[in-house]
Amino acid sequence: MVPEPNNWGRFGPDDQRGTLNLLNGPAVLSALRAAVTGQVVSLATPIGRKGPHLRGRPLPQHYMSIDGADFAAGARPVGAGLRMADDALIVSPHGTTTHMDALCHMWCGEELYNGHPAGEVRSYGAKKCGIDQVGGVVARGVLFDVPRHLGVDHLPAAHRISAAELAAIADVGPGDVAVIRTGWPLVWGRSPEEYWSGQPGLSAAAGRWLAERDVAVVAADNAAVGGLNSRQLADEDLEDDLHLILLHRHGIHLAEMLWLEELAAAGRTDFVFVAAPLRLQGGTASPLNPLAIL
Amino acid sequence: MVPEPNNWGRFGPDDQRGTLNLLNGPAVLSALRAAVTGQVVSLATPIGRKGPHLRGRPLPQHYMSIDGADFAAGARPVGAGLRMADDALIVSPHGTTTHMDALCHMWCGEELYNGHPAGEVRSYGAKKCGIDQVGGVVARGVLFDVPRHLGVDHLPAAHRISAAELAAIADVGPGDVAVIRTGWPLVWGRSPEEYWSGQPGLSAAAGRWLAERDVAVVAADNAAVGGLNSRQLADEDLEDDLHLILLHRHGIHLAEMLWLEELAAAGRTDFVFVAAPLRLQGGTASPLNPLAIL
Amino acid sequence: MVPEPNNWGRFGPDDQRGTLNLLNGPAVLSALRAAVTGQVVSLATPIGRKGPHLRGRPLPQHYMSIDGADFAAGARPVGAGLRMADDALIVSPHGTTTHMDALCHMWCGEELYNGHPAGEVRSYGAKKCGIDQVGGVVARGVLFDVPRHLGVDHLPAAHRISAAELAAIADVGPGDVAVIRTGWPLVWGRSPEEYWSGQPGLSAAAGRWLAERDVAVVAADNAAVGGLNSRQLADEDLEDDLHLILLHRHGIHLAEMLWLEELAAAGRTDFVFVAAPLRLQGGTASPLNPLAIL
Amino acid sequence: MVPEPNNWGRFGPDDQRGTLNLLNGPAVLSALRAAVTGQVVSLATPIGRKGPHLRGRPLPQHYMSIDGADFAAGARPVGAGLRMADDALIVSPHGTTTHMDALCHMWCGEELYNGHPAGEVRSYGAKKCGIDQVGGVVARGVLFDVPRHLGVDHLPAAHRISAAELAAIADVGPGDVAVIRTGWPLVWGRSPEEYWSGQPGLSAAAGRWLAERDVAVVAADNAAVGGLNSRQLADEDLEDDLHLILLHRHGIHLAEMLWLEELAAAGRTDFVFVAAPLRLQGGTASPLNPLAIL
Repeated sequence: MVPEPNNWGRFGPDDQRGTLNLLNGPAVLSALRAAVTGQVVSLATPIGRKGPHLRGRPLPQHYMSIDGADFAAGARPVGAGLRMADDALIVSPHGTTTHMDALCHMWCGEELYNGHPAGEVRSYGAKKCGIDQVGGVVARGVLFDVPRHLGVDHLPAAHRISAAELAAIADVGPGDVAVIRTGWPLVWGRSPEEYWSGQPGLSAAAGRWLAERDVAVVAADNAAVGGLNSRQLADEDLEDDLHLILLHRHGIHLAEMLWLEELAAAGRTDFVFVAAPLRLQGGTASPLNPLAIL
Repeated sequence: MVPEPNNWGRFGPDDQRGTLNLLNGPAVLSALRAAVTGQVVSLATPIGRKGPHLRGRPLPQHYMSIDGADFAAGARPVGAGLRMADDALIVSPHGTTTHMDALCHMWCGEELYNGHPAGEVRSYGAKKCGIDQVGGVVARGVLFDVPRHLGVDHLPAAHRISAAELAAIADVGPGDVAVIRTGWPLVWGRSPEEYWSGQPGLSAAAGRWLAERDVAVVAADNAAVGGLNSRQLADEDLEDDLHLILLHRHGIHLAEMLWLEELAAAGRTDFVFVAAPLRLQGGTASPLNPLAIL
Repeated sequence: MVPEPNNWGRFGPDDQRGTLNLLNGPAVLSALRAAVTGQVVSLATPIGRKGPHLRGRPLPQHYMSIDGADFAAGARPVGAGLRMADDALIVSPHGTTTHMDALCHMWCGEELYNGHPAGEVRSYGAKKCGIDQVGGVVARGVLFDVPRHLGVDHLPAAHRISAAELAAIADVGPGDVAVIRTGWPLVWGRSPEEYWSGQPGLSAAAGRWLAERDVAVVAADNAAVGGLNSRQLADEDLEDDLHLILLHRHGIHLAEMLWLEELAAAGRTDFVFVAAPLRLQGGTASPLNPLAIL
Repeated sequence: MVPEPNNWGRFGPDDQRGTLNLLNGPAVLSALRAAVTGQVVSLATPIGRKGPHLRGRPLPQHYMSIDGADFAAGARPVGAGLRMADDALIVSPHGTTTHMDALCHMWCGEELYNGHPAGEVRSYGAKKCGIDQVGGVVARGVLFDVPRHLGVDHLPAAHRISAAELAAIADVGPGDVAVIRTGWPLVWGRSPEEYWSGQPGLSAAAGRWLAERDVAVVAADNAAVGGLNSRQLADEDLEDDLHLILLHRHGIHLAEMLWLEELAAAGRTDFVFVAAPLRLQGGTASPLNPLAIL
């Protein structure tokens, strides 16, 4: 079997949307002009078993199949003396680490985004709208640092960011990546229990404001883009659910659980945002190491 | 626990090397100027159980914990009607999929690159030189399309690329990413057995030629940068082993098992190369979706 | 949540069948009388990555999260000096190791054994007929050593065991465990390729002969109780498929990939057969270490 | 590769101990005489993500690779119409589910039980004292129902069972399995937090009392045979640690996290105890479904 041709650098053919042309070559060239100093900042939390995560989720597991300690204890090198370490990772991205959602991750009714039958998302992968369809994202990133705007370290759990709050911070346009900072990951450091008590996030109106501006991706440092209550669920009804507004109705990819503290400290609103989700066939998400080029 | 600060966008402090400054801001800005059309091409094979891989390796496993078929069969939606798909990935990157090696992946003697004690690479992760130390790579990529240079579809299994062959194709400088095409993944499509019969790769002299030019990363479409024999092992002795020359002695990260066919078809030698390995703490590798911005 | 009461020692209430009373107390006491010498023999192959398995299946993976080599290399003991090894196992039992099939493993049409809707076997487990419903099996085992009967080391790949061959070896009655030896695992040792070339197994007529005798379990040393062709599939049509005859229509549990060489060497036809599948909720199978008490 | 011969039904040759002869044939025959009614009771909790477990451990994960819902949603049957469900289990037995410890699980100093070098317990398995060495256990079980003896539903977290308490309940002899009930799993049902607040268990003196009687296995319903404090650690020093007394110094296998409520309700002190740990090569433990034949 030959791997499928990768004619990417765009959202895949299954999932075309109005903004597709914004991610074509000229749009990418334009986005690259947002780089000023060239500093590259990772927007990911380390993948381990101690980082911020939603309660009850299966945490990443990382195992060595051979390592340096084995050789220290007498394991025989390969051939003339090569030694190596090898490992395995088990990861369920949603709620456990920095990741991007595929368009097949959430829906209501019988259809995914763009009318694809939801019943084709099966145990062996999603036939349509899998994370492998994303390719790569190279776009202008725009940071909405809401706590800084409001003069707080982080938003309180019950805060739902309004469209007006976004509009007061920056503007954003077609094909951009809206990067939403709530500061909530800072809470993890002082108390996982407090982290789990709820989460701030976008209001439905703010979600619609972003969708109207035709952004390509919404990337946030909270766990669900929208807010969560103490049971780790969204309070909105189906009409106002942030995943349904953005992912399901507009085909806007979501990236969640980013670590935005270095980016925020840099004080830059515009930058180049790069995300290269793993090409996991039919996956509902990919763990991610988003980069900001300042 | 607060996640460690991410002061990245560079090779980590544990693993500093001579070229570090080449990946600082001005070098990144310079690299970005290699973008001409803005087309973004993924250099990864899809992650599944059918792609090219070394024989005997544990292949990626991808499982849904809930999916659209479950709802089609009557699973109860969440809350007012939300439906979702969630999944888990098990992956051992070496030999199974497009990935980047960490500096802790291979060594000889008792020390890793830069003198770190190999015994600190343990079952629970590498204390030094883990893949989480890479951050992100944004650099100029230079394609060495060796089969094209030689007028063949792909190199034969026994071919070891000479320094002269590289020099005849392109030049490469400090901080660049040398992208080596052998065409060997094309063989997988007609016969896994032939794919496993051996692999073409860099000669030791070619590896030294690249190291002398102080490249930041060597990225290849074969499984081990160097060649492999029919037992899937390198034939070189310790002095000439490609992993030891590049990774162990010079701290040059390796990316392997790339899919370079679209990139090769584009006919561009220079481009922007972006790689954002997962921040897996103490990992020996990361599955990867490298991007070329043309 | 309190674990469900375990009122077991019988096939579970969801899956009651005619022979249930044969596994009640008096039947168990009667079965125990088959023990003569008290020698206990394991009927399982070791779980590793090198044992007999069907081609293409995900093999068991076993990883240490901490081990003795880590301490040898300097890991800090717990408390005053405790040292420990801990590990994880990833296993897909079918086709990879000695296991027992649950009644939800195979069916045709829309219903499992006993009319349970097949759509309730979902990504998060089988609501009915899961392996956790088995409890434990303590019954009389009867060995059908077909190669010995025919004077060969092992049956050839194309051999389909007839009802007459079974009848010529031994009789078996309600609630017994019919243990079928083909000797095929011996082939693995000389050639995995030959092991994969096909497999001997029961004919449909032999399956019906066992079902008529109302056995509780059929346990075999091949991979599928019935035979396999070179594509590792059964040749029978739906009417004659061994899994459908035994598991689907009669609710007879199947155990597969046993290692019967020590048992065969002991020369005993009757013994106590004990199987204690893991209580994996809604699982389709369990890896198994069946015991024969001679 | 031929699987190693299984000349088992006894503790393996690496791990011979004084009581080995007690598990030979005559001892097994004698143990079988403890069966009176023939009722078989499972002593395992269901394996899922909701059962009693120690905080912070990686919980069992169970995934279907194909299931009935996939067929309900349109998946194509195999061949003429076969449908099947297949699954994978990821399990780290210690602290998560009913399991048996291997002799390589815990030690102090540089040696395992019987003087085997601890450095040979490596990332790829334990060369000595792995769980695959156990074979199967068929022995007389003796229930020490301590809460019943004391007239309480379950022991309080701080209770350490004394030798006198054991002696007042029953006697136990060479080769027997001492089954210790604390009732602590009942606490899980009303509050995981309370379950995690500490655990009752054997005192060091009680452990020595059992070792002196030369039992083959100690099987308990708490997580560590000994008690735990609120940090889920043992309070004893190395001399008095229960794992070191029993497992390390005397080679007595431990089974933990059993579900003993049905057994206790049956009111029987003596019974046949059967345990058949998976033959996981070099494993530190096996998930287990112990059976009591009453």
